[in-house]
Amino acid sequence: MNTLGIIQTKEITFAQPPDELILESGQKLGPVTVAYETYGTLNAAKSNAILVTHAFSGDAHAAGYHEGEEKPGWWDAMIGPGKAFDTDKYFVISSNVIGGCKGSTGPASINPATGKPYGLDFPIITIPDMVHAQKRLIDHLGIDTLLSVAGGSMGGMQALQWAVSYPEKIRSAIPIATTLKHSPQQIAFDEVGRQAIMADPDWHEGDYYGKAHPERGLAIARMVGHITYMSDQSMEEKFSRRRKENDYAFSFKSDFEVEGYLRYRGDTFVKRFDANSYLYITKAMDYFDVAGKKFIAADKKVDAQFLILSFQSDWLYPSYQSRDIANELRMRSIDVTYCEIKSTYGHDAFLLEVDAETHLIKHFLEKVSQQKKSPTV
Amino acid sequence: MNTLGIIQTKEITFAQPPDELILESGQKLGPVTVAYETYGTLNAAKSNAILVTHAFSGDAHAAGYHEGEEKPGWWDAMIGPGKAFDTDKYFVISSNVIGGCKGSTGPASINPATGKPYGLDFPIITIPDMVHAQKRLIDHLGIDTLLSVAGGSMGGMQALQWAVSYPEKIRSAIPIATTLKHSPQQIAFDEVGRQAIMADPDWHEGDYYGKAHPERGLAIARMVGHITYMSDQSMEEKFSRRRKENDYAFSFKSDFEVEGYLRYRGDTFVKRFDANSYLYITKAMDYFDVAGKKFIAADKKVDAQFLILSFQSDWLYPSYQSRDIANELRMRSIDVTYCEIKSTYGHDAFLLEVDAETHLIKHFLEKVSQQKKSPTV
Repeated sequence: MNTLGIIQTKEITFAQPPDELILESGQKLGPVTVAYETYGTLNAAKSNAILVTHAFSGDAHAAGYHEGEEKPGWWDAMIGPGKAFDTDKYFVISSNVIGGCKGSTGPASINPATGKPYGLDFPIITIPDMVHAQKRLIDHLGIDTLLSVAGGSMGGMQALQWAVSYPEKIRSAIPIATTLKHSPQQIAFDEVGRQAIMADPDWHEGDYYGKAHPERGLAIARMVGHITYMSDQSMEEKFSRRRKENDYAFSFKSDFEVEGYLRYRGDTFVKRFDANSYLYITKAMDYFDVAGKKFIAADKKVDAQFLILSFQSDWLYPSYQSRDIANELRMRSIDVTYCEIKSTYGHDAFLLEVDAETHLIKHFLEKVSQQKKSPTV
Repeated sequence: MNTLGIIQTKEITFAQPPDELILESGQKLGPVTVAYETYGTLNAAKSNAILVTHAFSGDAHAAGYHEGEEKPGWWDAMIGPGKAFDTDKYFVISSNVIGGCKGSTGPASINPATGKPYGLDFPIITIPDMVHAQKRLIDHLGIDTLLSVAGGSMGGMQALQWAVSYPEKIRSAIPIATTLKHSPQQIAFDEVGRQAIMADPDWHEGDYYGKAHPERGLAIARMVGHITYMSDQSMEEKFSRRRKENDYAFSFKSDFEVEGYLRYRGDTFVKRFDANSYLYITKAMDYFDVAGKKFIAADKKVDAQFLILSFQSDWLYPSYQSRDIANELRMRSIDVTYCEIKSTYGHDAFLLEVDAETHLIKHFLEKVSQQKKSPTV
């Protein structure tokens, strides 16, 4: 498969004032660093830029390889020469959300007021705040209008937020496996993860940097997450009731493969993710709500076209939530294509159903590219 | 509504040897105390006894009121004069499972070998072990054959296990919202709960009696459980995105009602349940597997009739698992009625859909009562 080869993460810092971000909470955040990567080449008209937005635990490294690493970026199957987001045609931008822990300013960053990591002094951030920081990055890159903004899960929320906050700055959006608003069930799963972290004695009210991190709590939070990312069927296919040993252990050691898998995924996650970022980013998702009147204003003329994708077995962001997005767009006479993709992978499908997504996204982007921005009548 | 009035929990102890239980693990457990309650009157023929089996966190107190308590037993809506399990007609028995913490021998009981609570020295128990202990109780009460054994969730597993272990001792069984075997997703949710408990520094490898209990870990385990007991729709109906305050808290305080509810349910649970019992009983459920050849032997003549119930919105024990039970019975030419009840309550429906359950169970029990035990041809 074609690959982008070695990619480096870059960063841009918007130094304070007047460059600080005014957050939805009313608090100010500055300086704000945004870590990002780009793939492909921006054309002379600057009309081929696509912003790819990551899910909860993602980062700026969406495609290609980092020097010395064996695993490519999280959406490498979708971004590259000839792929869904074809870097022979498009200039793809991916950035780490603020509040994250992969280069962009977050709770582990140094608080300029104290010279120490923010911890819980980091302000609560929201999906709109993340998108406003991305808008700064896009401005910095000299791009006026994005050809598209695309992402799955929390990435889809950002795509929707772009449509709400900057409808005139996008020619299309591809929200995948996402929702207009976090449901109480989605909030509940997030809250369990937060409680697991905050119950860890190593959490110390978020003030653990330089000391032991709340790894057990974070691992448990991640285990819960992983269950919600898979489906009943995909777990059955992947694990069934297989055990390492033929006999039951008759102890609390993990004898089922699914137990070992969850523990492994929990333990590897703590090596790459900051517990406080888990708190902040889940809270941002829980606060997300652009349903009804909070969606694009009804009297606004929006030229952007939408491709909404969901997956049959995704029970964390069920298809009815994507249908709700499509309906809100249709109510506003906005161009929308909705497709529910057959899949047994559950929510993880947005990372795994590459063939179906590629087919749909490739043609959608070609259609959008070929259309001139329609003049306001 | 008719009530049974004040009820007292009784207990029977099977003193060791030779009365000790040989467990599925090969270990011995003794003495074994079984806490139980009975409602109604055993008829002269001893043919009207129904064993009601409780779910994961249930206990022997299924109906009526304990002295001084405001809440009745967990299935009071179903057990009493004129109710589904009509105590004017039937003699209803309910017992706490072994491994539990409500009167039957469990990890908080005194280990006769040490004079101290068992903790993790308590042997791993299984659903068959629970059922064998119930069989002792039934023998003690002088009952040869049960008119029925009925229960939801883990109670349904016990009903199925009775059919596998003692098919000639039951005239019918009513497994509700249950499964032939725990799926990897069901195991996964249990494992998260166990990990949350074992990560609590107060757990001390199960040796916490007389000291602080692992309350935060147990509360988190219960929070996960509660999400799985409800449905996406019932959470939407009950909580939606309602908050205590109109504005977001912009902090990690719980601002959504669903968060407050989960914390409340977690906090109240730790007052009534033992963390080690959580470990042991979830493990028993995870080990449960009577699917395929492990179900009732194909050449066995079984007269018992089955009523299988499931609920549309139950995603923890989805209806396909109940259909699988019905299919296994049909393959063995055993009399089975299966009904999927419309409900938005999720798994909790087995406690809440009283009208539908009453209608189905009442008529089923009447039919079973009226039929003589058919002679083996």
